[in-house]
Formats: sequence, C-alpha cells, structure tokens
Amino acid sequence: VTSEYRRKLEATVDMPLDADVFRVPPGYNAPQQVHITLGDQTGTAMTVSWVTANELGSNTVRYGSSPEKLDRAAEGSHTRYDYFNYTSGFIHHCTLTGLTHATKYYYAMGFDHTVRTFSFTTPPKPAPDAPFKFGLIGDLGQTFDSNSTLAHYEANGGDASLFVGDLSYADNYPLHDNNRWDTWARFVERSAYQPWIWTAGNHELDYAPELGETVPFKPFTHRYPTPYRAAGSTEPFWYSVKIASAHVIVLASYSAYGKYTPQWTWLQEELATRVDRKLTPWLIVLMHSPWYNSNNYHYMEGETMRVQFERWLVDAKVDVVLAGHVHSYERSRRFANIDYNIVNGKATPAANVDAPVYITIGDGGNIEGIANNFTVPQPAYSAFREASFGHATLEIKNRTHAHYAWHRNHDGAKAVADAVWLTNRYWMPTNDDV
Amino acid sequence: VTSEYRRKLEATVDMPLDADVFRVPPGYNAPQQVHITLGDQTGTAMTVSWVTANELGSNTVRYGSSPEKLDRAAEGSHTRYDYFNYTSGFIHHCTLTGLTHATKYYYAMGFDHTVRTFSFTTPPKPAPDAPFKFGLIGDLGQTFDSNSTLAHYEANGGDASLFVGDLSYADNYPLHDNNRWDTWARFVERSAYQPWIWTAGNHELDYAPELGETVPFKPFTHRYPTPYRAAGSTEPFWYSVKIASAHVIVLASYSAYGKYTPQWTWLQEELATRVDRKLTPWLIVLMHSPWYNSNNYHYMEGETMRVQFERWLVDAKVDVVLAGHVHSYERSRRFANIDYNIVNGKATPAANVDAPVYITIGDGGNIEGIANNFTVPQPAYSAFREASFGHATLEIKNRTHAHYAWHRNHDGAKAVADAVWLTNRYWMPTNDDV
Ligand SMILES: [Fe+3]
Ligand SMILES: [Fe+3]
Ligand SMILES: [Zn+2]
Ligand SMILES: [Zn+2]
Repeated sequence: VTSEYRRKLEATVDMPLDADVFRVPPGYNAPQQVHITLGDQTGTAMTVSWVTANELGSNTVRYGSSPEKLDRAAEGSHTRYDYFNYTSGFIHHCTLTGLTHATKYYYAMGFDHTVRTFSFTTPPKPAPDAPFKFGLIGDLGQTFDSNSTLAHYEANGGDASLFVGDLSYADNYPLHDNNRWDTWARFVERSAYQPWIWTAGNHELDYAPELGETVPFKPFTHRYPTPYRAAGSTEPFWYSVKIASAHVIVLASYSAYGKYTPQWTWLQEELATRVDRKLTPWLIVLMHSPWYNSNNYHYMEGETMRVQFERWLVDAKVDVVLAGHVHSYERSRRFANIDYNIVNGKATPAANVDAPVYITIGDGGNIEGIANNFTVPQPAYSAFREASFGHATLEIKNRTHAHYAWHRNHDGAKAVADAVWLTNRYWMPTNDDV
Repeated sequence: VTSEYRRKLEATVDMPLDADVFRVPPGYNAPQQVHITLGDQTGTAMTVSWVTANELGSNTVRYGSSPEKLDRAAEGSHTRYDYFNYTSGFIHHCTLTGLTHATKYYYAMGFDHTVRTFSFTTPPKPAPDAPFKFGLIGDLGQTFDSNSTLAHYEANGGDASLFVGDLSYADNYPLHDNNRWDTWARFVERSAYQPWIWTAGNHELDYAPELGETVPFKPFTHRYPTPYRAAGSTEPFWYSVKIASAHVIVLASYSAYGKYTPQWTWLQEELATRVDRKLTPWLIVLMHSPWYNSNNYHYMEGETMRVQFERWLVDAKVDVVLAGHVHSYERSRRFANIDYNIVNGKATPAANVDAPVYITIGDGGNIEGIANNFTVPQPAYSAFREASFGHATLEIKNRTHAHYAWHRNHDGAKAVADAVWLTNRYWMPTNDDV
C-alpha cells in the first residue's frame, strides 16, 4: 500500500530559541538536559547524563525508592568539548548501579546549588514472556512537528525508546551551531523518565574539516553515552541491550563494517554466542540508514551495509530491523536478497519467511521536511508507505506475539495509520506479512 | 585465461629469525628498519622512518646531493607503542623538505652513535608525459617466497612501489608478536632507496580485544606514516599522491566508506576537484580488498565497497585499480556493474570501455600460502588468473600508453607470465582489453 493520505505539506520550522521547550531550568547552575540510558546490558544499572552551565557542578547523583529517601549515592565524572567557536557546558555522566529490575527509582543531582529530582522504572528482568512496550522514534530534530511526535509518544506511554539516529540536526545550522545540541537536549528532557537507546545517524557525524573539526561524532560521543562495553563492544556506536523479552542490537551505519573490522567482528560474535532466543525471543536490530526502503530520498544508501550483513540477519532470524534517515514512513514485507554471487544475476529481493520486517521510522519531524517522493511502482518488498510524520510502538505481549503500530501526527492528535501483529521468528515463524 | 601453470605447491615458510635478511645492523643503537615514503603529494618532501632499539636515538637526518656533502638537516620526532606484552623501540619519523624533483639525495641518521647513510631519487615533477615505472606489490609477508618477490622487484628496477596492503603478517603469530613487525621492516629495508606508497590491509588492523588491544591499526600507524594531510585527508588510511604522470589514490577497505563518512566525503572531493588528467593523465586507485576477482578465497569480500564507490570510479574513468588480499594473481577486463537499483535485476558485470582494469596482486608470498581455488567457469570479467607468487610493474611511457607486466616467481628467476599495453582512459580511451 502507498497511503494516499497527505498531511498539509507546510514548511517544517524549527521552534524558536525562546520556545518554552528550550527553557533553561530555573536556579543557579541547575542541572539541565537530563537524560538516561542503560548503564549495563539489562538495566540493573542506569547512566544519568546532564549539563551544568554556570560552573562545574557536582558529579553526585543520589537515588532511592522514594523522593524523600534518596539513600544511595553514585559519583560520576564530567567532560567538556570545544567545537570550532563553541565550548560546551560541563557534561556530567553518572552510572547508578545495583538496581533491581522492574522497580521505580527516584534520583536527584545538582547538589552544589540547585537540586532537581527525576524518576525512572528499570525494565523487567530478561525473560521469554516478559511484556514490554517500546517507542520507536527517529530523525526527531526540534521543529513544531518534533514536538508533536514527542508528545504523541508520551501519550502512548512506552517503557523505553529505541531511537534510530539523527537527534538534534545542529549540523544544519551555520558552523554546526552546537547550541542546538543544548536546546535539543532541553527539549527532550521530559523523556528523562525512561531510558533511550541511541543509534548514531549521519547528523551525529559533525565532520567538518573546513572548521578544523575532523573527529567524527565529537558532540554525540561527549553527550550520549551508550553501554557498549557491557556488550563486549569496543566503540560506542555498536552494542546491544537485553530488555525484558527483547535482544536489541544497535549497528553503526557510519562506522566501518567491512569484513575483519571491529564492528563486523563484534556482530559475528554477538549473533553466534550472545543472542539467546530462549531467554530473549525478540531480536531487534537498529541502524540509521535503511536497507529496504522505496523513497527516492536517500534511495539505496543502505545497500553497502546490506550487502555486508543481510545474510547474517536472515540466518539469525531477526524479527524486526528499525531504521531512520528517510523522512517518511515505510514497512516492508519479510523479504531477502541474499543469493547474489556476481555471476548468477540473482539480485532481486524475494519473499523469505526467515527475513526481518524492515521499518523506516525516520519521520520524527525534523527541519529537513517530509520525503514525499516514493519510487513508482511500489516494489514488492514494500508493504506500506506514507509520507507523514509520526512515531511507532512495538508492544511485545509474550514470546510469540507483538503488536506493532505506526502513529501518524494528525494535527493535535495521533492516529494509528498502520498496524500489524508480528509473530516471533524463533518461537512462531508463521507468515505474518500483511 | 586461467593459466595452467603451477609452481610446486610446497608449504610457504617464514624465514627463521636468524635469517640474514632480519639481521640487526651492526653498531650500538644503529638505525634499523629504514624506509621512506612521500612527505608531500609530489615528492618535494620525503619522510624517512627508522627505529633505534638500544636507547632513544637522535631525530636528526642530514641530507644533501652527495654522501660527502650532507649539508642540510631536518629534525624529526619519535614515538613508541605498547602492544600487549611488547614494547616497541624508538620509532623515528623525519620529513625532509624543499627537495628538487628528479634529483638524487643522500641522507644519514643515527648521529648519536652509529651513523648509516642511504639515498633516494625524488620522482619527476608531475607532467602529462613524464615516464615512470611503478612496482606493484601486495601481501608480502616474510617467507622465502617474500624474499624472492622482493629480489625480483629489485631486479626489475622500478622507481617507486605501490604496496596494496598486508605487510608483515605479525598478527599470524601468537599474541600478534610485534617483533615480527620489526623483522619485516629489517627485511624490506633494502628497498629504502625508493618511496613505498602504503595501503592498509586487514593484517594491519591488529584488532585484538582478547589482548586488550582495541585501537585498530595501532602498529601500522606508529610505524608507517602516509602523506595524508597533504592530500586533504583527515586519516592516514586514505589519501593521494601525484607522481610523474600518475595520480594515485589510496582507499581504505577497513575504514568507514558509507555515504557522509570522512572517506566518502574525501573521495568525492578528490575526484571532483583535485584530479587533473591534463597534468597527471594516469589515474590509479589502490585498495586492499579487490572488487573484481574470481578466487574462492575471500570471494566477494570487496562487494560492499564496490557497491559504494564503483560508479564514481567508472565516471572518473580510472585507468587501473590495484588490490591485494587474495593470494593469487588476476587481471580483469574493463567491466562495470553499475546499473542495479534493487528492483531492476541488472546486477551482471558488463564490458564498459570507461571502466578500470582491476588487478589483484596479493601474490607477494606470505605465510598463508597460495590461493589455488578459482571459481569455475572463469567469469567474463576475468582476463587472466594464475595461482603463483610474484609482483607486477606498470611502466608509464607517456600520456597515452603504459606497459603492464606481471612477473611470476619462477624459482630463482622471474618470468613475465602476463603483459598488456594499457591505453589511457582520458587521452586514448580505446578498447585495450586483451
Ligand atoms: Fe535524518
Ligand atoms: Fe593477505
Ligand atoms: Zn539521516
Ligand atoms: Zn588481506
């Protein structure tokens, strides 16, 4: 299906710097830009990050089971970075350890001057039938549409967000204005009640030799830690987490993935030795640049990585592959293209019940606007596509069934425009193509 | 043609540590492992590298037009590295600048204790009809066969060596024994009379998380500098040089090359703005993992990079692409495979007069032995293949013609087993397939 529905295609506009979502929290040196991600593979640790802007604030986080009883403390560290003519605030990272699964914790920081308190609930312990609801968001940016997307996701009430890359789009501003990394983090802070799993997109590269900035991912790596070491990885851009009944693998579209490279080596070992479908039946892969998409915008950019890794994912019976990058929505059928050997000409994607469903969820609503130019005719591998902003949810019910839904930003409301029941590729590999 | 010729397939054996080629030069703290590469894009600078092992030696290089008149001096720097239980000697790098093209220079180092003197001739100034003879060597290693290859190349008398990766194979030894990086550099030191252009192969990765070694290319980058900054690159693994009538581009098979990555950005600009076929008619690309090869050993490993970059190289009318990795010899016809768009099925390589000739020259003779298992039948894109060790030469005569020859290691002798005249893709794009 190519959805005929069209939102009015007005210009996508960034929210102004004085928008309330960008407001600096009151109080001298108050912690700002608070966000959390998993601090280990399963969520018995949580890494809290925040920025102090006036002076170097305390690295301490106090936490406990009620806001009045923050009886534990953890000591973090801080970093800063320069980017051309920009100098960051003091960026703090602190990992809270020894947490219990499926438990609500309150935490506070800013003990030098202005204390702020937040909370999160740790995910359930990995188990084959542990239900869990993921939010799927990508290419968010900081426009009015971005704000709608985030609000709709909050209304949907997911437990953790799988973010497929392209966070702030600061690099679209003159000199890659890194103040837009700060505004974005303040905008998204209201999601600090739950962990976000980060994937690096091309807008995280911030590679600008013309500015003397030649270290890829400099702002991203200073601001957004990932639990890569816990996953046996050696770079923050590829890693995995085990949340409830899901094993989530994050891949790096903009790092090396050729045979023998660190990412290639890690993924091979991950699939061969660390994925356990008996414990975590749902195998989900995140990346930024999609392999199966049929929009002329960024068409076939993911081919080079697909050629390298597709067979592994099909052999591993991955359930879902999530990508962003294309600013539109698309869901594939279970197709694979793995028979090619240069001389046999077999390079046409074909239905394959072992293949993942590929979902492009790069429709968060960033400043670059909607990608409203699909290839014609719609290819056989494409099940549903629509050029609207929105987000999706993946609600795992048990080891066999998960309900997937895409929520279009429908003016002030959200509207389910595509939904499908997925059956697990390991426990119930039935034909679930719709 | 698949050559029927077979060298006896005896085990390829590394030369023992006490082989004369590995001998430490006499004299206390004598400079060892001397090698040179271009210090700028065209050879008016030359970077000299060497190791002092007993103590930190002087960083000074004296140079001049005769061994008795070393009237100029340059001051270099030194580095060291640890690799698991190995600590390197003092690795010196010193760039001699202000050189005149096509001029012989003598240089000496080791002024603290034991002085050694060498010489080189700078390449001619870039000009469209400047003749030049390149040696093409790959996957050399340090076996008795490696020694034959190097001896045969020396007998052929090239002016500079284009090395397509896999230098020492130290990583094949327990704990990636880095002493084998030292022995290799002593073995190859007799080539220090001419610049070698280095490409990184998979055996340069030395990525070994099990040893705590997680920084890719650590020994290689400490030991083998490249003039990447002069080429506008931001990493040592991709860069270019302009030698006589040739523009040589070095690509990195084991770095990121996806769209937007630094290597992708650099190559796009290089082809669009820095290649000038009127000045340097011959456009030559080096990489480690071949795109067109028909050996079952490492079959199709280069596909992922081919998918990303092949169209650019065909559009740029590259003359020759040199690769290694497959330990056998192969030369392609001018073929291209650039029409595929996922849904059209057009994925069969076809003759294309704009396409490069792809040469696999990974037959230097390393310890892993010959790759004696070609795909059957020989694909149309493959012109000549033979499972023997050897090296090749590319002798540029003028802007229109170059003579290419592959020299098999034929016991004590070298034998030309494949030779072809190439016509320049810019100045004389005739069908030169043989
Ligand atoms: Fe994007
Ligand atoms: Fe090799
Ligand atoms: Zn993107
Ligand atoms: Zn190799």
